[in-house]
Amino acid sequence: MNPLNAIYALSFLTAAAAFLFALYLYLWVKRQKVENSRIQEVSALIAEGARAFMDKEYRTLVYFALPAAALVFLLLPSPIWTGSIVPNIQMAVAYAAGTVLSAVAGRIGIMVAALSNGRAAERAQNSLSASFLVGFRGGAVMGLLVVGTSLFGITAVLLAFRDTSILLGFSFGASSLALFAKAGGGIFTKTADVAADLTGKVELGIAEDDPRNPAVIADNVGDNVGDVAGMGADLFDSNVAAGASALVIAASLAGSEAAIMMVLCYSFLGLIASMIGIACAKVGKDGNPTRALNSSTYVTTAIYLVLTALATFLIDGFEWRIWTAAATGLLVGVIIGITTDYFTDDTKPIVKRVAKASKTGPAFTILSGISYGFLSSLPAMVGIALSALIAYKISAPLGDGYALFGIAMSAVGMLSIVGMIISNDAYGPIVDNARGLAEMGGLGEETLRVADELDSAGNTVKAVTKGFSISAAGLTVISLLGAFMSEANAVLEGLGKALITGFDIMDPSVFFGMLTGASVPAIFSAMLILGVDRNAEKMVGEIHRQFDTIPGLKEGTALPDYRRCIEIATGGALRELVKAGLFAIGATFVVGFIGGPASVGGFIAGNIISGLLIAIFMSNAGGLWDNSKKYVEAGNEGGKGSEAHKAAVIGDTVGDPFKDTAGPSINTQITVVSLVASLFVPIFAAFSIF
Amino acid sequence: MNPLNAIYALSFLTAAAAFLFALYLYLWVKRQKVENSRIQEVSALIAEGARAFMDKEYRTLVYFALPAAALVFLLLPSPIWTGSIVPNIQMAVAYAAGTVLSAVAGRIGIMVAALSNGRAAERAQNSLSASFLVGFRGGAVMGLLVVGTSLFGITAVLLAFRDTSILLGFSFGASSLALFAKAGGGIFTKTADVAADLTGKVELGIAEDDPRNPAVIADNVGDNVGDVAGMGADLFDSNVAAGASALVIAASLAGSEAAIMMVLCYSFLGLIASMIGIACAKVGKDGNPTRALNSSTYVTTAIYLVLTALATFLIDGFEWRIWTAAATGLLVGVIIGITTDYFTDDTKPIVKRVAKASKTGPAFTILSGISYGFLSSLPAMVGIALSALIAYKISAPLGDGYALFGIAMSAVGMLSIVGMIISNDAYGPIVDNARGLAEMGGLGEETLRVADELDSAGNTVKAVTKGFSISAAGLTVISLLGAFMSEANAVLEGLGKALITGFDIMDPSVFFGMLTGASVPAIFSAMLILGVDRNAEKMVGEIHRQFDTIPGLKEGTALPDYRRCIEIATGGALRELVKAGLFAIGATFVVGFIGGPASVGGFIAGNIISGLLIAIFMSNAGGLWDNSKKYVEAGNEGGKGSEAHKAAVIGDTVGDPFKDTAGPSINTQITVVSLVASLFVPIFAAFSIF
Repeated sequence: MNPLNAIYALSFLTAAAAFLFALYLYLWVKRQKVENSRIQEVSALIAEGARAFMDKEYRTLVYFALPAAALVFLLLPSPIWTGSIVPNIQMAVAYAAGTVLSAVAGRIGIMVAALSNGRAAERAQNSLSASFLVGFRGGAVMGLLVVGTSLFGITAVLLAFRDTSILLGFSFGASSLALFAKAGGGIFTKTADVAADLTGKVELGIAEDDPRNPAVIADNVGDNVGDVAGMGADLFDSNVAAGASALVIAASLAGSEAAIMMVLCYSFLGLIASMIGIACAKVGKDGNPTRALNSSTYVTTAIYLVLTALATFLIDGFEWRIWTAAATGLLVGVIIGITTDYFTDDTKPIVKRVAKASKTGPAFTILSGISYGFLSSLPAMVGIALSALIAYKISAPLGDGYALFGIAMSAVGMLSIVGMIISNDAYGPIVDNARGLAEMGGLGEETLRVADELDSAGNTVKAVTKGFSISAAGLTVISLLGAFMSEANAVLEGLGKALITGFDIMDPSVFFGMLTGASVPAIFSAMLILGVDRNAEKMVGEIHRQFDTIPGLKEGTALPDYRRCIEIATGGALRELVKAGLFAIGATFVVGFIGGPASVGGFIAGNIISGLLIAIFMSNAGGLWDNSKKYVEAGNEGGKGSEAHKAAVIGDTVGDPFKDTAGPSINTQITVVSLVASLFVPIFAAFSIF
Repeated sequence: MNPLNAIYALSFLTAAAAFLFALYLYLWVKRQKVENSRIQEVSALIAEGARAFMDKEYRTLVYFALPAAALVFLLLPSPIWTGSIVPNIQMAVAYAAGTVLSAVAGRIGIMVAALSNGRAAERAQNSLSASFLVGFRGGAVMGLLVVGTSLFGITAVLLAFRDTSILLGFSFGASSLALFAKAGGGIFTKTADVAADLTGKVELGIAEDDPRNPAVIADNVGDNVGDVAGMGADLFDSNVAAGASALVIAASLAGSEAAIMMVLCYSFLGLIASMIGIACAKVGKDGNPTRALNSSTYVTTAIYLVLTALATFLIDGFEWRIWTAAATGLLVGVIIGITTDYFTDDTKPIVKRVAKASKTGPAFTILSGISYGFLSSLPAMVGIALSALIAYKISAPLGDGYALFGIAMSAVGMLSIVGMIISNDAYGPIVDNARGLAEMGGLGEETLRVADELDSAGNTVKAVTKGFSISAAGLTVISLLGAFMSEANAVLEGLGKALITGFDIMDPSVFFGMLTGASVPAIFSAMLILGVDRNAEKMVGEIHRQFDTIPGLKEGTALPDYRRCIEIATGGALRELVKAGLFAIGATFVVGFIGGPASVGGFIAGNIISGLLIAIFMSNAGGLWDNSKKYVEAGNEGGKGSEAHKAAVIGDTVGDPFKDTAGPSINTQITVVSLVASLFVPIFAAFSIF
């Protein structure tokens, strides 16, 4: 067997191993018993709601994806009327495969997560470490499925079509789904959260998870569809995009076979490292779940670095310079995670300062949160930029095109431990829901204390994984820009036009694209936030209607119509998301038709720059406000019910759509726009005003 | 006389005419009587406070400007040890002239503004149109001085040294002062405003301008030093930078003499148009001051277009393509002003929507304001980008370098009516103070109503002029980027290194600079906002101390120590501003030493892109919150004292440092960074890591 085929085989084997491991974890979670009937009942409602949202989401997606697939078939990689039939069919198939595989991984993952909620709640009665394992393993199913599926998909597309550029179609499919899952799920979850809080806590004065509130199940469903499914689809997307762009660049190199092998090999080694990390995760004797999650991440990182070093040592044609680029990416990712933690962890000074500012009133909560959110962008922005610069400079001596390949591999390196990252991230909403279920099921004080501790670890780790995933997306999109240039040049060559050697800032077509591209993430996130506002208002109306018309609801003798609230959140989320998505894609087309490929290159760059800035700002400011509210609630600066607490709650409400809707959706918006640009560049090259 | 000398002579004559006109207006304002003794007294306190702030500011500036001038002398245009003595002396002299001229214009302008406050208040007893004229003419003194001085300075430097690159030193001097005046004044004004509101309105329940509040005079002083002096210095800076970069590029063209003439001629024609506009401004029969301000702007625009068209028709070598570029810049500026108005005017839907959102609580005021603030960035960003693109494409056929010259001229065109813009802008704080004085002087209900109407017109027009000045700065800095490249190449040529032909986004040194540069305005504005927070806290402490220790203060039988509050605001403002300014300048050096000139080019571009986005967002969101608070106070959505009002007040408090401290200071930060980069490029070219 030639070495490349061996690598293909190993990729498939690793993906299969990940699926088997996920199956094992699923069966393990399922074996845990749920005895409390109230928990069974509510769990079932949550699972049903999540299913309902995802069904509707996938149906809406079909209306979007079918025309998109048709467009892909008609136009890509070359317009069909130029006689390009077979490659166009391949591209359309790859696109469809990208959406379907991501959807399947998300669907299974979220169902396992929903299964884990109640079980984690009941195990919390036994011990913290037992409950931790349920939460973590439930989340790990998602992590394994996402990374296994993306590795399987990339390898399969590559083997089937033997043409790396078809991978961009696959990646575009994954991005389409991610846009729906991340932005749609983000709007859903915050619509329900805000409406439930406003009517429940503020108007009626009932507890957060009170079953009389018609929005309470929608709120729990939101945690799953927003954080579990959304995050999974987002990282599936980034992972595929990083792999695809590295492979597109690898194929254009002089030593292309070794380079392609290296991308695949580093990818499956990352999955192997994540599997080992997942298998090792458990709460130690100190009973500290945050440390358990973090140390598994560090274990995974170390194993990955060792495995890839070994592979580089053993396999002919694997370059140490590229290994260094990948290692730099991964280390920078870890460092960014740690600095994010500094800004959002409530044991660190920043959260305390914002809590202190809350004593002077909500305006100061907001101003200080916005300011520190802005400040927190510096390490991530500089870190991403530096790792790209280092990767480039290290790889450049290997020859033409290797510098860009180095950047792409630094993104692959940063994303290598993504299986572990998703597991950590999905753990959060599971234990969050488990806490709610423990309260609704009346499992007692001690169980609630355990559930609280697990939940708090989830919040801390979440900030870190978010910083990580935004940075990874940033680095990925830089290499997508490289892929875009290769694609554009292939087209321009065919048209007999001058090739693009770069995107010069001093070229006003590029500059026009940059300024326009920079405003798109701002507009996109504003549209999502306004969408949440509009939907929450609608849901509040529905909650009022139910309390007015359902006899016995206030007294707790009748049940509310949970489904209606889920329907409102679902319908509204998809409507708002389609508007925002069409705006971002439409802007790409307008810029392309005005300024041609040069403007589009600038557009992508402007989009990355302001997108990263706004995404990091929003995620960190949101996390900061959330934790400073929790810090006040823990009895500091006056504690619950004080003026500082009221101000901190306002900060948290502002931060919610920042960190759970807009901030994390910007990644996906950037990837979608970059891919649309890369794919439609033939059209822009042929028809543009300037 | 050769034509170039004729143009020089006409520039001086126009500047002299502007000074004479300003003197005439000053004497006219001074002739207006102030009879109310309370108004005399408070006016004197305000004037004294403004003087105290400016004295301290200028003293602090000396500590900054002297070392900067020494550095300029040692290093620029070439290190002194390379034998470059005379040009270095010239550069240092130009730098000093830039700071001194701007300081003198600001100092005189603010004193006339302070003189006008009380007189406008008293004239409001006679009629709206009389009071309007005092406010407008008081502001026009500032407008005429600023534009006259900048025209005089540029022409003098050019004539004295016959070397356009020395102009960059002059421009750097103007920027240094603007950084102090704009950011320092911005911190001062909001420190006093926030502290006065928190203690007065919230804690003690006394009226906004109650003389018992120790911070009340500081608050009035703040309006003058922030809005009058700061805005003046900012536009002096932009105006000089636009002129200087156009002249640097003009000097490098084949037909350089005609190009230089064109820049100067268009500049003095803009001043002439502004003088005519100022002379025509008066409130018509309809008694609408907003219309009066706007129509003078339109008159000025029309006159400018006609005058420049005539000049282009008459003078040999003046190109119609360049005229079109300048006209495009001006028209885009006016359009951006109008769209800004759409987002911030309380007769338009957006302000009403934010007011409505306030009924659901402060979190929604904040979220909707932030969202619409982001949305409002689109027209300005696209407008700036499009006008640069159009100017470039129109001018490119004239030959090598003309495309860049077209962009620079489009900035000159946009800034041509700046005399009129400053007059409109300085009118705002004058009538704002007049309203306060009318209240303190007890001039009665009818006078207050007139003062209110004049004040409200000031607020509306202010949003427009802010949008205009930010956009003008954006376009200016694009041409500064061009100037930077010329400078860098001159140096690289001397060093025998490869020339820069552009800044390629795909070059990771450029990309590194872009990402880092993009985070600087975010950090810079966060530092300013946190500075306001810190200072306001200190001043609140001082106010408490005075109420606790001065007997009879609460009862109104003793006067507070106003000076102490002014001192706190002054010292704090300068301290915070120096930190933020050093950060921005330091970041430029770090990037330069890491990545060399390529990184610095990217740094400037990233800085412009995110700086424009954040500046527009902050200015517009702030204006939007301010006006939606006023809209609620006018009796809508529950009116004063309602929940919506409380929420709207919180929005306004968040918006205050956005629109008056951080947002408008970003312009200056961008200009300072671009100039530092252009000036120190020899050092970066010689020593850099990558």
